[in-house]
Amino acid sequence: MDDGGDLVTMLHQQRRDQLPEIIGGTEETTTGVIRLHSMEANGVLGYPIVAINNADTKHLFDNRYGTGQSALDGIIRATNVLIAGRSVVVCGYGMCGRGVASRAKGMGADVIVTEIDPTRALEAAMDGFRVMTGKEAATQGDIFITVTGNKHVLRPEHFEVMKDGAILANAGHFDIEIDLASLRDMAPDNREVRPEVREFALGGDRRIYALSDGRLVNLAAAEGHPASVMDMSFANQSLVCEWLVANAASLEKKVYEVPTEIDKDVARLKLETMGIRIDELTTDQKIYLESWEQGT
Amino acid sequence: MDDGGDLVTMLHQQRRDQLPEIIGGTEETTTGVIRLHSMEANGVLGYPIVAINNADTKHLFDNRYGTGQSALDGIIRATNVLIAGRSVVVCGYGMCGRGVASRAKGMGADVIVTEIDPTRALEAAMDGFRVMTGKEAATQGDIFITVTGNKHVLRPEHFEVMKDGAILANAGHFDIEIDLASLRDMAPDNREVRPEVREFALGGDRRIYALSDGRLVNLAAAEGHPASVMDMSFANQSLVCEWLVANAASLEKKVYEVPTEIDKDVARLKLETMGIRIDELTTDQKIYLESWEQGT
Amino acid sequence: MDDGGDLVTMLHQQRRDQLPEIIGGTEETTTGVIRLHSMEANGVLGYPIVAINNADTKHLFDNRYGTGQSALDGIIRATNVLIAGRSVVVCGYGMCGRGVASRAKGMGADVIVTEIDPTRALEAAMDGFRVMTGKEAATQGDIFITVTGNKHVLRPEHFEVMKDGAILANAGHFDIEIDLASLRDMAPDNREVRPEVREFALGGDRRIYALSDGRLVNLAAAEGHPASVMDMSFANQSLVCEWLVANAASLEKKVYEVPTEIDKDVARLKLETMGIRIDELTTDQKIYLESWEQGT
Amino acid sequence: MDDGGDLVTMLHQQRRDQLPEIIGGTEETTTGVIRLHSMEANGVLGYPIVAINNADTKHLFDNRYGTGQSALDGIIRATNVLIAGRSVVVCGYGMCGRGVASRAKGMGADVIVTEIDPTRALEAAMDGFRVMTGKEAATQGDIFITVTGNKHVLRPEHFEVMKDGAILANAGHFDIEIDLASLRDMAPDNREVRPEVREFALGGDRRIYALSDGRLVNLAAAEGHPASVMDMSFANQSLVCEWLVANAASLEKKVYEVPTEIDKDVARLKLETMGIRIDELTTDQKIYLESWEQGT
Repeated sequence: MDDGGDLVTMLHQQRRDQLPEIIGGTEETTTGVIRLHSMEANGVLGYPIVAINNADTKHLFDNRYGTGQSALDGIIRATNVLIAGRSVVVCGYGMCGRGVASRAKGMGADVIVTEIDPTRALEAAMDGFRVMTGKEAATQGDIFITVTGNKHVLRPEHFEVMKDGAILANAGHFDIEIDLASLRDMAPDNREVRPEVREFALGGDRRIYALSDGRLVNLAAAEGHPASVMDMSFANQSLVCEWLVANAASLEKKVYEVPTEIDKDVARLKLETMGIRIDELTTDQKIYLESWEQGT
Repeated sequence: MDDGGDLVTMLHQQRRDQLPEIIGGTEETTTGVIRLHSMEANGVLGYPIVAINNADTKHLFDNRYGTGQSALDGIIRATNVLIAGRSVVVCGYGMCGRGVASRAKGMGADVIVTEIDPTRALEAAMDGFRVMTGKEAATQGDIFITVTGNKHVLRPEHFEVMKDGAILANAGHFDIEIDLASLRDMAPDNREVRPEVREFALGGDRRIYALSDGRLVNLAAAEGHPASVMDMSFANQSLVCEWLVANAASLEKKVYEVPTEIDKDVARLKLETMGIRIDELTTDQKIYLESWEQGT
Repeated sequence: MDDGGDLVTMLHQQRRDQLPEIIGGTEETTTGVIRLHSMEANGVLGYPIVAINNADTKHLFDNRYGTGQSALDGIIRATNVLIAGRSVVVCGYGMCGRGVASRAKGMGADVIVTEIDPTRALEAAMDGFRVMTGKEAATQGDIFITVTGNKHVLRPEHFEVMKDGAILANAGHFDIEIDLASLRDMAPDNREVRPEVREFALGGDRRIYALSDGRLVNLAAAEGHPASVMDMSFANQSLVCEWLVANAASLEKKVYEVPTEIDKDVARLKLETMGIRIDELTTDQKIYLESWEQGT
Repeated sequence: MDDGGDLVTMLHQQRRDQLPEIIGGTEETTTGVIRLHSMEANGVLGYPIVAINNADTKHLFDNRYGTGQSALDGIIRATNVLIAGRSVVVCGYGMCGRGVASRAKGMGADVIVTEIDPTRALEAAMDGFRVMTGKEAATQGDIFITVTGNKHVLRPEHFEVMKDGAILANAGHFDIEIDLASLRDMAPDNREVRPEVREFALGGDRRIYALSDGRLVNLAAAEGHPASVMDMSFANQSLVCEWLVANAASLEKKVYEVPTEIDKDVARLKLETMGIRIDELTTDQKIYLESWEQGT
């Protein structure tokens, strides 16, 4: 079981001798899955891996509702700042980003979204958020949250124009979403002003505050995702391991999706624990959906 | 260009002689695409068809933001009822359903969602809506909106337990989502009390109001989707027609997706008309995303 | 019964002979009550008048939830414009303004508020809206809605910097909130492009659209407030008339508030019709609230 | 400076000899002000006191946005529970209650409100919340938050019907809003399962979790209100102290409101620190507002 592709990278680079022993693997994150697809495309993947992250009951929930709550939780624990009335810039409008944007709005923020994908940018705009380039957003934000899985999303060109008091947090993946190395160069005399809060004094009386050294703020400054959302991710992990063993003989060295039956089973189980019952299609409705001869 | 598969059905049933003349077709709706896949699976599809509905710039926008606004618009025009403080039951949590649920909540309603898919039901619950069976919802709702693409989603077992004054509207597909035939049998002396509003007096002093005879309330009682969301759907239609002609030689009798380049082009164009500029990946970021050797 | 002080003005200016015949009056609107207080302060009020508008069951509901829904309803009926993704400028953050702002946000708009009162401006900011001067907002808005009760809230200095396609609507009081006379001077060749929509072509290829000639857009282009919110206002009107007659002997030529018993009765009655039951204080709790000797 | 009337009670009960030395006092909370009015009505108030809580820049902000965020913050820190998808019962819809309800909704909860005042109950319903008696809510809630300023809002009749796993938190005033003494009697073998979380095992395999022994959860389990909302409360405290000294000669032993000039000054100052500029009335508009002779 991998989280972000670290184990996979180590196995393929430093422990290639062990690759043949492995029946299969699983990967928990968006970032890791992107990496695995790159490995598969390059023909270097050494064993079958299931993209847990792509299960609906994982990425639609853990990434959205989990990160949405815990990223803000981390920021509040680190700073005790009031979200209401502040401009919150969310970099990235994937599942994590829309979770964070939605929760920040729900707490009274004016939310700005930055994106590189035009479709997602449009969705953000239609969801009521302001959408603009990172450069423009840098001048308007009070709190910046990166949720991209990429690197240097906030970098010197942004630090240079941010307002005094700007707060930077990462809730995406590695600690390179914010280019802290450059920020340290810009303000060598930075200091910790509160646990998890480092102050960088820049020119012109501007101070910028980076949380948790750019590591995931929900893990570093809070307790990570609530159990009641991780339960679904882990149920997928567990059931997929069983499935990998049972189907080992027929699997190739590829990236597999979580089987739909497992994904739906997890959803059904979760609803049950929440005391929620839902409808079933009537026979009549099933026939209707499968037919193309019935109509108006 | 088809909308709901009516043209396709007519061509395949009554005008089979014309099938060979057709280069290709397009389909605008979720319901139509379900039908086309059924035809393809049955090996009866007579020409290549592009599922316009599946373009991100179509179904993520038209279905969600278009239907979200126009369904409520239709209900308000038909009834002039105050949404705030009322329980609104949304049957179906696809793109249309989440649009309607989100807008009803935004207007102050207590929103209840019914679903047959467990994953969607979970999403609805995590989005803050109450989720329950149609039977339970029937006793609590003030306004019911069907957005399923299926038939008889509201039927006698529901009518029998609804509150006095319940309002029924369809914003899904055909006029069979609400089983109005049965409702007419239950209350033969129904009468129009306002344009687009028909009152059905049931036993026990209960009256139920069906809007627009169960036809799409946004088309029948309002003006349909705003131009500023249909523009994206029609841009896809138009660009895909060009593409069909250009690629006619190599296309099979299958259901095709809208080519990604066209889909993204439509998004980019739309952002431009809204005056929104977004970021581009730096060279550094592109390399990072494609690599699996860089890491922590 | 007066609405906006028109009847009162006519009686005091043109029919002073009738003043002695009048037992008492009522006034429905914020604007009218401001006017009555001015008359009372000037010592010119000719009979006792009850400020219906000030009843909690009136101004907290009719102004907020009624105007909130019906103003947007009017704009949509007049233009069929999509609210999602648009910048909506709400001028004034009184009860009407917060209703309109809340509903526009609920429909997916980016909402900007302008105010002259610093406390209300702060509330708007903490509620997640952007707050700025009218001059700044004029350059950013797609739709402008005036809800101030004042005059010339939108005027040439704003028209001159608005974007092409800006839509202007009034949901406040008189048709002078938008200075249409000046707009007509700026674009004498204006024309109706749709019922209730007048286009003003300004220099530099900019066109501005004014709805319903600046009259109340919810009355002119839609059906006004829903019955289920006006019922509370009219219940106050009716019960206060009884009260005026019963107490005629002891009333002075002043502006009176709606008696609290009447106001609370209306609320209780309304809850009952909505099928909502609420708690009552226990004896223990009543004693606790009245006491200052009990404590930590 | 008093918070909840504790100092005042001690002075009037145990240190009456010091009363003559006191120029004046201030009171920070809703609960304290209720108490002071009761003392004034009973003729026992020993010195002039200003109700800081009643300043708009205090109770509209501190109580609403401060408590809204910090109560949920406290609950999340104590339990790390996911708010999305849960039913949150908010007891009381005063300024604190509407803050908590709004933020819980913003985090994806299904929010239920209980009230004793019919007007507030109606507002809650129109704001989209479900309103019911405490007894009904007790069977439906996952998380209960008391914000009433009263005692025993949650008591045995509620504990008896709550679901397994229900969480109880107080964000109102004293630690008697939840009748924990009775809960302890019902489950003598209660135990701490996490810091700030006490488990009470009741009959039928039901366990209830009370946070922070019923004390204010935002103070006990989190850091209290953010500085950026308390600044306004304390600005009022500080400026009112100056005012008390300056006006000592003319003040009576009564409860005074914060002078409007001070209240508005605090709002203006706060806007300035947020970088927000607002409009001023034009001369023309001032004349219009003061006039009753201008009209349609």
